[in-house]
Amino acid sequence: MTYCVGMMLDQGIAFMSDTRTNAGLDNISTFTKMTTWEMPGDRVLTVMTAGNLATTQSVISLLDERTKAPDERAPTLLEVPSMFQAARLVAETLREVIARQGDEGQRADSAFNATIILGGQIAGGPPRLFLIYPEGNFIEAGQDTAFFQIGEMKYGRPILVRAYDRQMKFDEAMKLLLVSFDSTLKANLTVGAPFDFHLYETDSLRKGREGRIEEDDPFFLKIRHGWSAALKTALDNLDDFEL
Amino acid sequence: MTYCVGMMLDQGIAFMSDTRTNAGLDNISTFTKMTTWEMPGDRVLTVMTAGNLATTQSVISLLDERTKAPDERAPTLLEVPSMFQAARLVAETLREVIARQGDEGQRADSAFNATIILGGQIAGGPPRLFLIYPEGNFIEAGQDTAFFQIGEMKYGRPILVRAYDRQMKFDEAMKLLLVSFDSTLKANLTVGAPFDFHLYETDSLRKGREGRIEEDDPFFLKIRHGWSAALKTALDNLDDFEL
Repeated sequence: MTYCVGMMLDQGIAFMSDTRTNAGLDNISTFTKMTTWEMPGDRVLTVMTAGNLATTQSVISLLDERTKAPDERAPTLLEVPSMFQAARLVAETLREVIARQGDEGQRADSAFNATIILGGQIAGGPPRLFLIYPEGNFIEAGQDTAFFQIGEMKYGRPILVRAYDRQMKFDEAMKLLLVSFDSTLKANLTVGAPFDFHLYETDSLRKGREGRIEEDDPFFLKIRHGWSAALKTALDNLDDFEL
Repeated sequence: MTYCVGMMLDQGIAFMSDTRTNAGLDNISTFTKMTTWEMPGDRVLTVMTAGNLATTQSVISLLDERTKAPDERAPTLLEVPSMFQAARLVAETLREVIARQGDEGQRADSAFNATIILGGQIAGGPPRLFLIYPEGNFIEAGQDTAFFQIGEMKYGRPILVRAYDRQMKFDEAMKLLLVSFDSTLKANLTVGAPFDFHLYETDSLRKGREGRIEEDDPFFLKIRHGWSAALKTALDNLDDFEL
């Protein structure tokens, strides 16, 4: 499995993804699930993927190759005029890859499905965030639901639902994301560190701060221990049930 | 879906279950998922069920009917000599019901599967807690994993994993359970109040405190609001990420 979160903030968009892939429980590897395309001053697009690794890698490679092959007739991610068109392009590529694997008669225990988060900004429009389904349709983050999760999302959801706030700054958002990732990590073997992140700043039209949080990253360790202790304190501070 | 938790404590066993059942999203009802059999001074057995409602009701009815039909040849829940034998009996009844529905050619979108938590004590043995699978096998709570969840368990798991402690008293355990149920409720429509609970006290060999927590129960409302606030405070108290 996988765990990725994309989060709209007034300050910009925060992206975080884990890096564990597994085929069975004894075949685990580290792959990045986050890819960013940038044309400074014009656009920044970040894609995070969850699902069948062959499918997601194929989608990313196709999207990437097309940006480098100027003779392709179809517009590429570096040429589409809007974020909406970018979402359509990614969605079509995803559907195409899934359909092709189906056509060629491949069968496996797990489906070839994948789900994608796409976020970014293209000059002339605001930052936008999309969740793209394997069927090739997609939804956009709005005022009410301003973050998307894909993959193993349940363990890390309660804290996001409660603490997310559009006005958060990136430094708080990173903390919230790491708490959410830690909850997932603690409960599920198929989500693993390191975690990749990208913090895109609204209207900057260039890559924001990017990086990778290792499992032994001092800040992450502080979060892990601090959060366990803080949760226990929070629980202690609630009144006990009166029997 | 469903959410039930059974938790071994030094003080006894705490059971809590939600009461929502649904067939689709627009056909929801309230059914209790917790049943307790008692022979004061000899045994107390509590069963919680998750899964296909027809299956679980059938299992409970069969178990119950047999305790009332003294001519049945098979031993009943009120006669088996140990908790282990009680678990075998419940497991066999479950497998039997699932198999019979399969045999009779019934087919539905959802499987007839169900999962059961059984806990209690029979005179002469210690309190024991079992998780029974649809296949008819089962596992017992030990020192390391001393609680079981069934149904929609992921949302409510992180707080249990972090805060559970065998030495908790029932008043703290109720608080922890309600926080875990609240996290699930907040994230998933198919888990709903009221919640049933039973707190069996070690070596009492009679029913402990039982009851039902309604959605507008003042203590539960206090937990809900208090916990949201406490989580936000806990998060605020962690250092922000240094960008």
